[in-house]
Amino acid sequence: MANAPSGFFLTIEGGEGAGKTTAVDFIKHWMSDRQLAFTETREPGGTQVAEELRALLLGHHGEPLSDITELLMMFAARSQNLFHNILPGLEAGEIVLCDRFTDATYAYQGGGRGLNTQPVETLENLVQGALRPDMTILLDVDPEIGMARAKGRSGELDRIEQEKMDFFIRVRNAYLERARQFPEQFEVIDAGQSLEGVQKQLLDVLERRLGAR
Amino acid sequence: MANAPSGFFLTIEGGEGAGKTTAVDFIKHWMSDRQLAFTETREPGGTQVAEELRALLLGHHGEPLSDITELLMMFAARSQNLFHNILPGLEAGEIVLCDRFTDATYAYQGGGRGLNTQPVETLENLVQGALRPDMTILLDVDPEIGMARAKGRSGELDRIEQEKMDFFIRVRNAYLERARQFPEQFEVIDAGQSLEGVQKQLLDVLERRLGAR
Repeated sequence: MANAPSGFFLTIEGGEGAGKTTAVDFIKHWMSDRQLAFTETREPGGTQVAEELRALLLGHHGEPLSDITELLMMFAARSQNLFHNILPGLEAGEIVLCDRFTDATYAYQGGGRGLNTQPVETLENLVQGALRPDMTILLDVDPEIGMARAKGRSGELDRIEQEKMDFFIRVRNAYLERARQFPEQFEVIDAGQSLEGVQKQLLDVLERRLGAR
Repeated sequence: MANAPSGFFLTIEGGEGAGKTTAVDFIKHWMSDRQLAFTETREPGGTQVAEELRALLLGHHGEPLSDITELLMMFAARSQNLFHNILPGLEAGEIVLCDRFTDATYAYQGGGRGLNTQPVETLENLVQGALRPDMTILLDVDPEIGMARAKGRSGELDRIEQEKMDFFIRVRNAYLERARQFPEQFEVIDAGQSLEGVQKQLLDVLERRLGAR
């Protein structure tokens, strides 16, 4: 389309207790203040069917999920979210803000579960074609600190939150490796510092990357 | 394993109203009479999580499933069924009898939905590695006859059964094309004939392919 507004695909990543929810709220306020049109979604989830897949993925079952089953269910939910939310938002020229996306699959299923990245890449290309996030904000925190925060919340831990500490250390390392591999995509924020410090860094990133919209 | 019994992977395929359930019962009786050890399963389904995926796949939703979402959910259920039922059965040297398998994906998602077969092949290799059925019994019937039988059953039609006739004609053609492509795997049975005729053909196939076990 000639002169169509250009969408911007912004994803937020981070381990348990990294403060994603607070960061997403901060970003939404920043966008609203500037009257920037945006669509908000999360993964796995974002549509009725994708949220049912999320419940299956995070719930406790009488049977273990095979690593490949888990991976396929993640990408099934992603495909549905792309079709119903992400692509329509981008096509309308909006900022699409997604709480976790495929980098989380590389981190959790690749790093955490130790799955070869080849099937993740295969599914990424199958489901997304050439689509990749324009910017990914990675909230990086020591898993010992993050898990202590996550456990401090009310409610039971879900199936993935119940993994052992070395799982979360592998998840963090895989996220940081993705950030090194794709420096133009990633903005890494130290989420171990004070809330004020995190928000100062977030504000800097938003002004620099989205201030001209 | 030295001297381990060799498993046999037997799948049953066919469109709506082809008589799969009756054929599966007939095959089970034949195996039981000969005291052949077997595992029975169906797709999509066969485990708790896979049956929940089946319910999501066949249920009616407020939103359309994208073709790729449907394909990924089918293979997620398949991966779980392989992991929990099919591979353990084959490793124990049993006959594994599966009501529908990947040929159904080629027929329904490939033929019916008109999806390129490339993603089906990609997922088949990812999920199954080199595993393919040792024998596939295709119950072939004119969709006009099959759908009239299916509608004669009690209960509502599911999401896929509600497709239009040309969908089922494409499904049938894709099944027959698979049979032409893999003549060593497929045994095509005319399911438009009388029940006695179908069972005579089934018996012939079973004696010929499994009589020596």
